[in-house]
Amino acid sequence: MREVHILMNGVTGRMGKNQHLIRSILAIRAQGGVAGKNGETIMPVPILVGRSAAKLQQLVDSLKAEHGEIAFTTDLTKALKDPKNEIYFDATLTQSRTDGVTEAIGAGKAVYCEKPTATNTAVALELAKKAKAAGVKNGVVQDKLWLPGLKKLKYLIDTGFFGQILSVRGEFGYWVFDGKYQPTQRPSWNYRKEDGGGVMIDMFCHWRYVIDNLFGDIKSLSALGAIHVPERIGEDGKPYACTADDAAYGTFELENGVICQFNSSWAVRVRRDDLLTLQVDGTLGSAVAGLRDCVVQHDSQTPKPIWNPDIDSPIDFFDGWTKMPTRDAMDNAFKVQWELFLRHVVDNEPFPWDLFEGAKGVQLAELGLESWKQRRWLEVPKLK
Amino acid sequence: MREVHILMNGVTGRMGKNQHLIRSILAIRAQGGVAGKNGETIMPVPILVGRSAAKLQQLVDSLKAEHGEIAFTTDLTKALKDPKNEIYFDATLTQSRTDGVTEAIGAGKAVYCEKPTATNTAVALELAKKAKAAGVKNGVVQDKLWLPGLKKLKYLIDTGFFGQILSVRGEFGYWVFDGKYQPTQRPSWNYRKEDGGGVMIDMFCHWRYVIDNLFGDIKSLSALGAIHVPERIGEDGKPYACTADDAAYGTFELENGVICQFNSSWAVRVRRDDLLTLQVDGTLGSAVAGLRDCVVQHDSQTPKPIWNPDIDSPIDFFDGWTKMPTRDAMDNAFKVQWELFLRHVVDNEPFPWDLFEGAKGVQLAELGLESWKQRRWLEVPKLK
Amino acid sequence: MREVHILMNGVTGRMGKNQHLIRSILAIRAQGGVAGKNGETIMPVPILVGRSAAKLQQLVDSLKAEHGEIAFTTDLTKALKDPKNEIYFDATLTQSRTDGVTEAIGAGKAVYCEKPTATNTAVALELAKKAKAAGVKNGVVQDKLWLPGLKKLKYLIDTGFFGQILSVRGEFGYWVFDGKYQPTQRPSWNYRKEDGGGVMIDMFCHWRYVIDNLFGDIKSLSALGAIHVPERIGEDGKPYACTADDAAYGTFELENGVICQFNSSWAVRVRRDDLLTLQVDGTLGSAVAGLRDCVVQHDSQTPKPIWNPDIDSPIDFFDGWTKMPTRDAMDNAFKVQWELFLRHVVDNEPFPWDLFEGAKGVQLAELGLESWKQRRWLEVPKLK
Amino acid sequence: MREVHILMNGVTGRMGKNQHLIRSILAIRAQGGVAGKNGETIMPVPILVGRSAAKLQQLVDSLKAEHGEIAFTTDLTKALKDPKNEIYFDATLTQSRTDGVTEAIGAGKAVYCEKPTATNTAVALELAKKAKAAGVKNGVVQDKLWLPGLKKLKYLIDTGFFGQILSVRGEFGYWVFDGKYQPTQRPSWNYRKEDGGGVMIDMFCHWRYVIDNLFGDIKSLSALGAIHVPERIGEDGKPYACTADDAAYGTFELENGVICQFNSSWAVRVRRDDLLTLQVDGTLGSAVAGLRDCVVQHDSQTPKPIWNPDIDSPIDFFDGWTKMPTRDAMDNAFKVQWELFLRHVVDNEPFPWDLFEGAKGVQLAELGLESWKQRRWLEVPKLK
Repeated sequence: MREVHILMNGVTGRMGKNQHLIRSILAIRAQGGVAGKNGETIMPVPILVGRSAAKLQQLVDSLKAEHGEIAFTTDLTKALKDPKNEIYFDATLTQSRTDGVTEAIGAGKAVYCEKPTATNTAVALELAKKAKAAGVKNGVVQDKLWLPGLKKLKYLIDTGFFGQILSVRGEFGYWVFDGKYQPTQRPSWNYRKEDGGGVMIDMFCHWRYVIDNLFGDIKSLSALGAIHVPERIGEDGKPYACTADDAAYGTFELENGVICQFNSSWAVRVRRDDLLTLQVDGTLGSAVAGLRDCVVQHDSQTPKPIWNPDIDSPIDFFDGWTKMPTRDAMDNAFKVQWELFLRHVVDNEPFPWDLFEGAKGVQLAELGLESWKQRRWLEVPKLK
Repeated sequence: MREVHILMNGVTGRMGKNQHLIRSILAIRAQGGVAGKNGETIMPVPILVGRSAAKLQQLVDSLKAEHGEIAFTTDLTKALKDPKNEIYFDATLTQSRTDGVTEAIGAGKAVYCEKPTATNTAVALELAKKAKAAGVKNGVVQDKLWLPGLKKLKYLIDTGFFGQILSVRGEFGYWVFDGKYQPTQRPSWNYRKEDGGGVMIDMFCHWRYVIDNLFGDIKSLSALGAIHVPERIGEDGKPYACTADDAAYGTFELENGVICQFNSSWAVRVRRDDLLTLQVDGTLGSAVAGLRDCVVQHDSQTPKPIWNPDIDSPIDFFDGWTKMPTRDAMDNAFKVQWELFLRHVVDNEPFPWDLFEGAKGVQLAELGLESWKQRRWLEVPKLK
Repeated sequence: MREVHILMNGVTGRMGKNQHLIRSILAIRAQGGVAGKNGETIMPVPILVGRSAAKLQQLVDSLKAEHGEIAFTTDLTKALKDPKNEIYFDATLTQSRTDGVTEAIGAGKAVYCEKPTATNTAVALELAKKAKAAGVKNGVVQDKLWLPGLKKLKYLIDTGFFGQILSVRGEFGYWVFDGKYQPTQRPSWNYRKEDGGGVMIDMFCHWRYVIDNLFGDIKSLSALGAIHVPERIGEDGKPYACTADDAAYGTFELENGVICQFNSSWAVRVRRDDLLTLQVDGTLGSAVAGLRDCVVQHDSQTPKPIWNPDIDSPIDFFDGWTKMPTRDAMDNAFKVQWELFLRHVVDNEPFPWDLFEGAKGVQLAELGLESWKQRRWLEVPKLK
Repeated sequence: MREVHILMNGVTGRMGKNQHLIRSILAIRAQGGVAGKNGETIMPVPILVGRSAAKLQQLVDSLKAEHGEIAFTTDLTKALKDPKNEIYFDATLTQSRTDGVTEAIGAGKAVYCEKPTATNTAVALELAKKAKAAGVKNGVVQDKLWLPGLKKLKYLIDTGFFGQILSVRGEFGYWVFDGKYQPTQRPSWNYRKEDGGGVMIDMFCHWRYVIDNLFGDIKSLSALGAIHVPERIGEDGKPYACTADDAAYGTFELENGVICQFNSSWAVRVRRDDLLTLQVDGTLGSAVAGLRDCVVQHDSQTPKPIWNPDIDSPIDFFDGWTKMPTRDAMDNAFKVQWELFLRHVVDNEPFPWDLFEGAKGVQLAELGLESWKQRRWLEVPKLK
């Protein structure tokens, strides 16, 4: 049994609490830890960090019955000095992330954090360099890579199913109600530029690692944002003007010639397999991946349709696609990445999703906004 | 009974023969003509025009049993001098269209032709001006407007179903086999730039009138072409290099703020409702139109999904859409436009789809190619 | 934490006990109270009131294990003198309601009560005026407004789904067995006029606020009652003559021209979506709401049927309607209104469903009986 | 073989041509006639009558290929003098019906005609008396009685299925488009009072014989008409003001105490079993009849529902009803009545649906309009 103490900063928020604390760290504890390389069991031990003792107390109280006592502190600096604490995790607001991570690097801790890793590329890159210089292990959450649907897609790529991949169509989004009649399902800051909102900055960080990891290096991009719904109702029941993009149209050229087109929108209704779908077309076959499932059509199954609007199509275009079986248990994506990071820290297992990769996500979002502004294609320079 | 003699040039080709001669003009004859404004019956009489007497003879022979004797000639100039012939129709190759139409205008005939009306905007516009100056009635085929699915979409727009339209996603295309194992289904010139091929020039002419007529005036565009499949097998059984785009990605900003994104590709497999689908999202509802059907989701039917990849989605995103009923008989799109043009010629009924509108299609295609080359957004200037 | 003591009179009856005490007040306590405007928690504290100490003791005993100790008293007058008790609630028989409510108003308490608020309009109106003169907050149960199905219908109205509403068809009722072979499911007094029975007086109070709140002000009405089943078996196992209407046919003209036809019957078998259905037809769409669900058919989905009895209908008239999704959690209707009343009392939040509105319900029932008697349409005068 | 020559006046109209000429008389000829009482075959022979020889010629021409030569005349008076012609049938406009039928009675012919038999009760009654005085056989079309669904309902009534019938709910109607976007499906005169339009006058004639024949004699009625859609597009493409009722709400008290409520509307969308449904509730069972089918729920199948809006209904109220089998071939309703009338003329078989019964239909429509005007219940006096 090898205990690993983790300072978890920012887990009073919804995402930090549910995905990282409860469904990852506490779930790993509940399952009896993670198997290490040399037969030992790696057992994570969370110490919650935050500014409000009251909120932290309330959180640990609510978890006590099911998960037992959890330690917490409001003094990050002191906690970082304790050599027992090996990992610093940060899920605070983007604006405060740099400070926490920088302090943890300075204290020689392994660092793991949410994306975006900073509010601009320069800072994000600086952070990556500091971690490297300090020789601390580091990682950034890239959860979508472990979505069951994308893992199935990865399997197809790895086994050569597609022949040569030609193009990728990504569609992300759903209808976010404006709150006028139907209460909305997203916080109002998402729609205010001045509060860090906008779907482009949110999603392009994801698209960067999804594309890099699955399809190839991005060479250039053209992006367009739009504010489709100009007014929404806020948490206070009053209308507010939307100043941040609620839709982001991005086209990416890869070094290998593949064209990726990714639409992200909070103003579309969903008529597709899932909230996020990736259609990949290759010379030998195509696939459409969703969050959990992936359907494929091999060249041998591809119909040869005739354009004849005078009769109902004799082909149902949803037939001729078959669903991949779920052959392996599919665990929560956040938890899977946590387990990999724990093994990286304890056993030096490879973990390529580091702060440098995180900086690439910030870069793509920043270039997207710039392309939108300049109304032209931009090259994506290599980060060094 | 009012007979209208029509010189039909270029109907030995597949499209001209099937859609214009057989399914439009001969079908109108079979149904007993078109009802005119003042109670008379308008009856079209085709005279086929072409360069090869042998091919024309073969064509009229093949039609004789079912449709009776059809006249033909290889001498266009002479036929244009005959005052009995009122309409000149052109479905020849784009390269030769200008000459034929110009000559017909000179002869004072009403002209009707396929798109593109010319190989570049200047010539197309010149043609429109000539027709106007000569005072001849003129029209350009814009068949997609009468696709049953798009007529249903138009009904939704006219009746205010969408509230305010926010965005449009067009997906056109299907898998065109490269001919290596499975014989291909398109001619090789489509894939050679030097022969006038390319999907952008083909489809942007359509998108122009579809967008103009359904969604609003185009303000600017950004386009990208790609040659996804670099080599195909030609009619001669030998491989050839593809030099024209087999995929065209276009984004259009409209004057009214709507964003239209239209993908056209001969290198995708179809997992959607039809070979062409248009998804329209508006504040009050959304629709997806195909060639013949149109499904809708009203605001009141819009689900409020939760992002939870750990369980199968409790919502089937294809449910909650309902198919519009087909309340009126839906005729062949080409034939419908022919009937309108005949009434325009005989009864002066309105026919807004003229050579000027045709020139706008050429313009969009030309600007698309230019945007691709310059790698930036281009304004779409008003044609005069 | 702000405690609000409520005198609950008449909760030994089925409706008072289940809907008001257990599923409203005790449920609010179980959920931790109601959130007040300024961050405080409003916590209701029930004190049961009744004539029979034995019955009250039995009731609190039965609730003790799950809900803890509940106070009770048989001395209403004394309880009303205690300044700690802020609200008086009355779910006693209609005949005794006036006395209780009047006394509570005199004691300066906020009053909340079941409908009908009195046995005739004059008394009901007098009660409303007394409450107003005394300046006490007051409310009347109008639970149907918070039925999930009617909330969905309200959403459609608010969002303009119907275009202009033309007509409303309400069908309420089900088969009440007469007790001869199958035991009946309603008390015998419901079928005796001399005991305050009759479906018209019961349901017209509901239709008043449903129509007023959803469709518009009632201008005139024509009503017909019927005693379809003349004899039933009573609680004593003996047949009794039914003297009160078991069916009430009402037609209402609204100020805005809408025609509402509401049938209420204990002598119909149900072949419709629910025990209560409201079909609303408008220029742009129609809906049928039940207790929890609501199906809609938009103009674009409306079929164009042909009358041809010689073949089975090619249209299934239940298709082409789609069910609205349940996007928000739907709480018990009585509890929702209780929460609103508590916020009204503590925080002065608006609560338009007061004794004056309750008097309007009594008025409609009274006019319904009068129209039935006079066999003609009657105007519905404004109450002042 | 016994030939019966029939003068058919007004069969160039849609209803006369399709239902009476083609689907009744010509269909009877095609099946080889009708079997008479004494073994002979009754064979109807139509002679068409009209004012326009051209229209008649066109009609007989169109029928020639399939049905052989049909005689016609524009001289009714002369044709009535020919003793060979035994029956006069009238499907002309209501306004001209009286003249034709009176002349035929004067000529001693058997008369059979469409409803309404006249534009007011006095004239309709006069016509019945004239026929009686002249001793000619006579009949009025009452086709709904032979709708398969209503025949099944009659079977249930005759066999005592309902126990005592308590109430009847009739719903007739569907959505008639106003022509603004979707072409309408009814002629514009239907919506103009000055042209004899209105749904009440159209449908109350039907309800009279349906109720009289199935449920009992009508004692009194209360009726309300409404013009729900105030403007429609006419045959000339221009908007016109609707001056006739497009919805008629009728409530009828029968001598036997049964309450019948019949709604007729061209402004409802259909969520029920058929375009016309009759729900009959009786002490022992209920049924809902449509045009062709009839579903029943016997007392033994009747559920005992609980009003609980907090959970989805455990009962699907469309279950628990079973469809009656079609045990006998169901012929076209018009043809069935024609066969009965032919047997009445030739063989003196009973035919109770005479001009007197037709006058009762006119009476009910007239009283309906009067009740609407006077805003009160009216007695329905016996016609003599």
